[in-house]
Amino acid sequence: MAVNLSPPGREDLLPVKGVRLGVAQAGIRKSGRRDLLVIALAADTRVAGVFTQNRFCAAPVQVAKEHLASGRPTRALVVNTGNANAGTGRTGLADAAATCEEAARLLGCDPREVLPFSTGVIMEPLPLARIVAGLPACVADLREDNWAHAAEAIMTTDTVPKARSRRAGGATVTGIAKGAGMIRPDMATMLGFIATDAALPQKALDKLVADAAQNSFNRISVDGDTSTNDSFILIATGAAGRCDAAAVRKAVLEVSQGLAQAIVRDGEGATKFITVRVEKGRSDTECSSVAYAIAHSPLVKTAFFASDPNLGRLLAAIGNSGVRGLDVNRVALYLDEVLVAEAGGRAAGYREEDGKRAMAKSEITVRVVLNRGRVATTVWTCDLSHEYVTINAEYRT
Amino acid sequence: MAVNLSPPGREDLLPVKGVRLGVAQAGIRKSGRRDLLVIALAADTRVAGVFTQNRFCAAPVQVAKEHLASGRPTRALVVNTGNANAGTGRTGLADAAATCEEAARLLGCDPREVLPFSTGVIMEPLPLARIVAGLPACVADLREDNWAHAAEAIMTTDTVPKARSRRAGGATVTGIAKGAGMIRPDMATMLGFIATDAALPQKALDKLVADAAQNSFNRISVDGDTSTNDSFILIATGAAGRCDAAAVRKAVLEVSQGLAQAIVRDGEGATKFITVRVEKGRSDTECSSVAYAIAHSPLVKTAFFASDPNLGRLLAAIGNSGVRGLDVNRVALYLDEVLVAEAGGRAAGYREEDGKRAMAKSEITVRVVLNRGRVATTVWTCDLSHEYVTINAEYRT
Repeated sequence: MAVNLSPPGREDLLPVKGVRLGVAQAGIRKSGRRDLLVIALAADTRVAGVFTQNRFCAAPVQVAKEHLASGRPTRALVVNTGNANAGTGRTGLADAAATCEEAARLLGCDPREVLPFSTGVIMEPLPLARIVAGLPACVADLREDNWAHAAEAIMTTDTVPKARSRRAGGATVTGIAKGAGMIRPDMATMLGFIATDAALPQKALDKLVADAAQNSFNRISVDGDTSTNDSFILIATGAAGRCDAAAVRKAVLEVSQGLAQAIVRDGEGATKFITVRVEKGRSDTECSSVAYAIAHSPLVKTAFFASDPNLGRLLAAIGNSGVRGLDVNRVALYLDEVLVAEAGGRAAGYREEDGKRAMAKSEITVRVVLNRGRVATTVWTCDLSHEYVTINAEYRT
Repeated sequence: MAVNLSPPGREDLLPVKGVRLGVAQAGIRKSGRRDLLVIALAADTRVAGVFTQNRFCAAPVQVAKEHLASGRPTRALVVNTGNANAGTGRTGLADAAATCEEAARLLGCDPREVLPFSTGVIMEPLPLARIVAGLPACVADLREDNWAHAAEAIMTTDTVPKARSRRAGGATVTGIAKGAGMIRPDMATMLGFIATDAALPQKALDKLVADAAQNSFNRISVDGDTSTNDSFILIATGAAGRCDAAAVRKAVLEVSQGLAQAIVRDGEGATKFITVRVEKGRSDTECSSVAYAIAHSPLVKTAFFASDPNLGRLLAAIGNSGVRGLDVNRVALYLDEVLVAEAGGRAAGYREEDGKRAMAKSEITVRVVLNRGRVATTVWTCDLSHEYVTINAEYRT
């Protein structure tokens, strides 16, 4: 029941020269589905990444950070779904390392040139033997026009594969992401991989991956829970040579934002796509506090699910945002173009039927004007439905 | 579907000398139910209160704080359910003041000697005329043995009235509370009123109300949303004269904690009562951060609803608590007596069937041992069920 989200057509996904993808059905959690992905990178490719801030960060996240820091080039990424390899202690670290070793052996590179990624159930042992057994099929399947299968192979509770492409400034940018629950990325989404054939210096790439995360994956929430496995990787193969850097940057941001919004549209049980825009605050921090207080309130989210303009819950959430010295008498609240509240209470011109009409839509913008500064920020979220409870009550069955 | 919670028997609720209660069916939101309460206090009664930290705090909260600060004695409390009179701007303040004026006229006291309280839907105008019309019936009904009806008259989505009594140190302590959703009190619960006939100096009463809130209502969460109307009032009539202060203090804490736990047991849609105990932390702040990260995680709460020992979600929540420098390799996690995780991963002796057995119970203790300090704290919460979504999607219908 994703909100206005279609799977990408194969022809919409542009190959990125220097990036080959191969998938397999390894039977990691369930049989008969694509669940293992290898992304092989041409020599001289640069890679940058940002990772979860969760203290129980997963074994593959620890290993990937270590390998990135080793100073060696990255030649391959290995991604499995069905098991997060998080909360797995030393065994988990050994399993992630063994995955890299096996991929390196097959691809003829150093294990430190392989980055591992996992997503799925937490605190269960990684079925290493099945992954090792599945890797040769991934390697045999490697090709540049395989992004659509790759997007499928990283899904967990996602109902729609998520992928985007752009051509800009002489370069191609293509990316995939997954995530539907445990989504309140702190550095990056559950898993996001974006590649370009533009040649970008490492410093520019590091900055771009952070900027892109900050303006896309770090602006979404499904349920306020930050995952143990969040990883967002930006790949630049350089095959297209020097490109228009500003245009490439814009394309990377667009692809990131498109993927981040796709995660919310496909949020577990989502029936509404909600944009929360907070304006005229003093800082990004306080605007974000207000936006997330709204985006995380189960009462606000269930009201959206019911299409019920029980908008006092929005006021309560704003009041709970922890913004110091917030004068509620200066706050204005809009639902799309409808002025709902001002001067500490319901707006004189507000009519319930206007609220109802806005709430009935599948895409709604909540706009909060704080009237105490010049900063604005936007966060994307979804509603809280019965389906969310069903999905998460039955996740492991 | 409250968890192991019965309505108090009328005979269990001990009258408190100097406190008379009267209720009426004022038809504030729905007809045919008790929805208006007056609590009349004998002369020389002392009153202390703590209130919500929500910036959109309700009109009656603002008026009650102002009246308490006026230095005058408090002679009556007026409480309505069905409408929160929050997010109602200047009109709301005028309505709360008018409620006090009418009650004062009927009782022959000054309006500043009346404290108003409201609970119900936010951002809808208070039906003042119906409240004014209902007040005479409340006053005619005033009597000391009316606590059971009073507990009923303040319910909203509560399914069970909440009341407790204790005899201690020569004094009686009786209290009532309400609340089932929008429960993550910041100073006090939605509404809690506790009275004793002990004689307590104002300073001791002020300290006791804060201590009691801190160890009861401020330790619970149903959905992480702090209400606009939280108010917790402690009343000491002095009719029993000097009592054993330590025993009275203990009784007040017990009644507060019993009422706070009753709110969680009757949490919207609750099927499980969950105690989260965090031990060996460096400070109460960090223990609370860990406890609330668990108590507020929708993924943890749906796993409890499903009786599914998907306990990696608990690790993820602990990792998200924002505790600086937390070494997850030192954390131990228990479900009741079952050691689930240690050394950064699943405990060697943990068996899924032990987790399943613990999760199947209606009362479960999650114990997190941080092993980095000497402080412990406890928080009470409930699970997240389909019924929560149903209740909050249909709240106004």
